[in-house]
Amino acid sequence: MGSHSETQPYGGWLDGSLGVIYGIELARAFAADPGCAGLGIEVAAWADEEGHYGNFLGSRSFTDALPEEEIDRIRGRDNGTPLREALRRVGFADRPRERVDPGHYVGYLEAHIEQGDTLDTSGLRIGVVETIVGIWNYRVVLTGEQNHAGTTRMVRRKDAGVAMVRLATRIHDRFPEIAGPRTVWTIGRMLIEPNAPSVIPGRTEMQVQFRDADPERLALFERTLYELIGEADRAGPCHAMVEPTSRSEPRPMDPGFQALIEEAAERHAPGRNMRLPSAAGHDAAVLSYRMLAGMMFIPSLGGISHHWSEDTKEEDIVLGVQVFADAAERILRLAPASR
Amino acid sequence: MGSHSETQPYGGWLDGSLGVIYGIELARAFAADPGCAGLGIEVAAWADEEGHYGNFLGSRSFTDALPEEEIDRIRGRDNGTPLREALRRVGFADRPRERVDPGHYVGYLEAHIEQGDTLDTSGLRIGVVETIVGIWNYRVVLTGEQNHAGTTRMVRRKDAGVAMVRLATRIHDRFPEIAGPRTVWTIGRMLIEPNAPSVIPGRTEMQVQFRDADPERLALFERTLYELIGEADRAGPCHAMVEPTSRSEPRPMDPGFQALIEEAAERHAPGRNMRLPSAAGHDAAVLSYRMLAGMMFIPSLGGISHHWSEDTKEEDIVLGVQVFADAAERILRLAPASR
Repeated sequence: MGSHSETQPYGGWLDGSLGVIYGIELARAFAADPGCAGLGIEVAAWADEEGHYGNFLGSRSFTDALPEEEIDRIRGRDNGTPLREALRRVGFADRPRERVDPGHYVGYLEAHIEQGDTLDTSGLRIGVVETIVGIWNYRVVLTGEQNHAGTTRMVRRKDAGVAMVRLATRIHDRFPEIAGPRTVWTIGRMLIEPNAPSVIPGRTEMQVQFRDADPERLALFERTLYELIGEADRAGPCHAMVEPTSRSEPRPMDPGFQALIEEAAERHAPGRNMRLPSAAGHDAAVLSYRMLAGMMFIPSLGGISHHWSEDTKEEDIVLGVQVFADAAERILRLAPASR
Repeated sequence: MGSHSETQPYGGWLDGSLGVIYGIELARAFAADPGCAGLGIEVAAWADEEGHYGNFLGSRSFTDALPEEEIDRIRGRDNGTPLREALRRVGFADRPRERVDPGHYVGYLEAHIEQGDTLDTSGLRIGVVETIVGIWNYRVVLTGEQNHAGTTRMVRRKDAGVAMVRLATRIHDRFPEIAGPRTVWTIGRMLIEPNAPSVIPGRTEMQVQFRDADPERLALFERTLYELIGEADRAGPCHAMVEPTSRSEPRPMDPGFQALIEEAAERHAPGRNMRLPSAAGHDAAVLSYRMLAGMMFIPSLGGISHHWSEDTKEEDIVLGVQVFADAAERILRLAPASR
């Protein structure tokens, strides 16, 4: 069990670290309890789940889903440092990577704050995750002509900033028409070059992301995005291009694990738990390719996350770890003896 | 005479430095020529014309148009360093500022590349500047709510990135309807916080600038900008505000200087010179508040400036300095003996 050890810029104190601390707490409690002898827990704090270098680097490395060539290629999103160099600096360059032995594990369990407001607005205390949504990411680049903001007449400008805001507006106008009830899309990152008040931008870039539990909906969003970019490119005067940067497919959680988490939740918080999809990506989705996986949510106050004001009531944090411990114990006791 | 000593990020080799080099060349040539005895030239390389800290810092300091309180307040646009600290680092903290004695000068002359394509596309070689346009700058801030890009449903988002691209698109749609033949406007700088692919932007900022030689047109643009921002703020869900950051008024150049520059141009390049407004701001506009001022342009190839590919034909650079020298000599010889 576990979760990730970092969060987003200006992020809060629970995203990721809550699940790591739950894991450590359970490992300690089980080790101290003679009644739990033989129920083994390994705790993971996965690195770079959020994509400071890549997405889910730690869990993908562990599950053989991170090729060496990708490590060669990756650079820090904000500092441009090659990942190889960053690994060298912290003394990880020559250390062999830990690789999963799936036969060694009953499965993977992860606890996390919901990060949305479904539990909080419904007054519920525990969420049992059914599916982790797919997340598709794209880099869109607009190329124009950098020039002087005074002397270049409007008619002959190729302003990559204008091209970006117009295309982004088209995307935000069009996507609602094809969205499902839980589809979300975001343009969270935009780069403007050279980003000076008196210079017409010559090149801009934006990252477009959408999420849904339905693979067909994701494919429809991708087709629509490509159409909009093709239209912008043909309309000119700037050149528009798009490339996919990363893509995770929707992942269902193990039905048996779901039932056992729900059973434990019902014991501690009867009638105050629900099943729901996760609109955030999680390491559990990566692990689910190699072993059974399950996830449990506790509420996020006001649904706020990826911001320092992210928080959860103390009694919900405490209730969560009790439910999680009970579910984990049941899962371990029910596991085939061969494991 | 002179010009400025720096340019924009990724800028070229002529913007600013050409006029400084012309000044030094003339000062040397006049000093070496016994026929020019008594015709005195002072050369200025004005600092920070482009706004790395503020706009026109050097020429405004020299002409008493840069109050101490403004120096206290200014920070570097890209590094955030207080101007006071930057001055201290280069040993300027305790040095008294040089102040203009207007009675000491006949006037100010500045040579510069046009930075636009008027001369180049017309096959002309010298431009006589009639007016320097006014440049009005604004900071527009959109405030929303930073949140998780997966778990925050679309209906409850307050995405400051969406608000920015929609407002920018409205500005780019509306401004052409009120523009004069030479009005230009630019959104050259945009900031997105925290600018991460999986985080809904909580705060964005853009710098809006427009330029025209007509003060009434500038006022109309300002009213329209405030209307659009008011509409965006009322429409929600993000808060929109605007504040002016800097403003230079249109400045006519001295008609006598214009006539003498034109006369010199007509001698060296008959029929291949024209009068035109400057769509770029220049230190000559600042100096014009304290003494007579005149400006001369040479062509920019393809009208490109504020980019490293900025260039001018060598024969035009040479012709320009001859015209400039002739005009300067005539102006000095015609000056009242009292100066």
